[in-house]
Amino acid sequence: MTSHAILTTVTERPGMLHAVTKVLADHSADIKYVDIHGGDRLSEIYLEFTLPDDGAAAVIEDLGRVPGVESVAETPTFGRIYGKRVIVMGGGAQVGMVAMGAIAEADRHNIRGERISVDTIPLVGEHELAAAVRAAARLPRVRLLVLAGSIMGGEISVAVAEVRKLGLPVISLNMAGSVPDEADLVVTDPVQAGVMAVMAVADTAKFDLMRQLKKRY
Amino acid sequence: MTSHAILTTVTERPGMLHAVTKVLADHSADIKYVDIHGGDRLSEIYLEFTLPDDGAAAVIEDLGRVPGVESVAETPTFGRIYGKRVIVMGGGAQVGMVAMGAIAEADRHNIRGERISVDTIPLVGEHELAAAVRAAARLPRVRLLVLAGSIMGGEISVAVAEVRKLGLPVISLNMAGSVPDEADLVVTDPVQAGVMAVMAVADTAKFDLMRQLKKRY
Repeated sequence: MTSHAILTTVTERPGMLHAVTKVLADHSADIKYVDIHGGDRLSEIYLEFTLPDDGAAAVIEDLGRVPGVESVAETPTFGRIYGKRVIVMGGGAQVGMVAMGAIAEADRHNIRGERISVDTIPLVGEHELAAAVRAAARLPRVRLLVLAGSIMGGEISVAVAEVRKLGLPVISLNMAGSVPDEADLVVTDPVQAGVMAVMAVADTAKFDLMRQLKKRY
Repeated sequence: MTSHAILTTVTERPGMLHAVTKVLADHSADIKYVDIHGGDRLSEIYLEFTLPDDGAAAVIEDLGRVPGVESVAETPTFGRIYGKRVIVMGGGAQVGMVAMGAIAEADRHNIRGERISVDTIPLVGEHELAAAVRAAARLPRVRLLVLAGSIMGGEISVAVAEVRKLGLPVISLNMAGSVPDEADLVVTDPVQAGVMAVMAVADTAKFDLMRQLKKRY
């Protein structure tokens, strides 16, 4: 099985994704990621997929024959470029400090060949944060979530329990509310929380989040 | 025209995306975003699309009839939750400071109803950074790129020129190398660069990047 990424430029009209995915289905490709970038006249469809054998050339040739496809090119995968994602969300002051720690630590691992991105969103409101927590489990390449704030509970705690069940680990700052009780790990210092988050997802680190389960720092 | 987001759970096997997109093509849906979340036995296919009329109910019903589709549900769009993205890349020390400024400023706008995410990756190496710059133009919802480092040039400058031509504005820190010459705006203080980046993409701000074009601060 081999992994590939292909960027196609297509005429902007409904049904193009259906036409393009037909070629991949015909080649028994297992599509792992799709991105569509709309333009006025032309759109780009970016596809990451695995093939049972190593024949991406045949896929590219067949894609070039689809009516409406203007160009097809192989390209590096997002996974190779942006890698694993740590998502930090909550209050701006705390999110900034967690990001500082996480980015500094990601730098140390990325220099040694890792690819870790730190993605953040400052947000206010129980409903908004709960929706963002739930959506994080659906975003591509997300490996860990950090909740950074001063008080979080209610619907946010319910959402944390849900995403943990889906296999997404959650680190919470030590704060008021019930979110720390639901998290895998609770950390008081936001910079340290960011560092630990990156260590937990880095293959170049020896930190095992599961051994820290339910501890508080 | 109406916008919708749908999350389907499907049996993990090649061809499912093709089968699902057939339903959308039949309803003349214009697909704006797709995400695939693979599992062992089941996968999730998340779709954002617009319809010529407001009948998402018919699409949901038809999707439920596709063999291999286990469940279909409407859900809020990523655009509504994570919104516009500012991407910051470069050296860890500078990326962290730019992120601090950008996150603090995004907090101020998100409180007033905006949705701005600040996504970062610390990276080293001319080739690696150039590839990340080029890929940023293909990532969904990206509105602005900040290059944060002490020296960047060569292939990175070529990549900056390319993404600017595709319509992605670039802010560069004031640094050694040719990247500042290619950027839309050059800023010395990393915190201010982050703040300006968010102001430039926020509808709630009055900052017009085009009026600052080629200025240096």
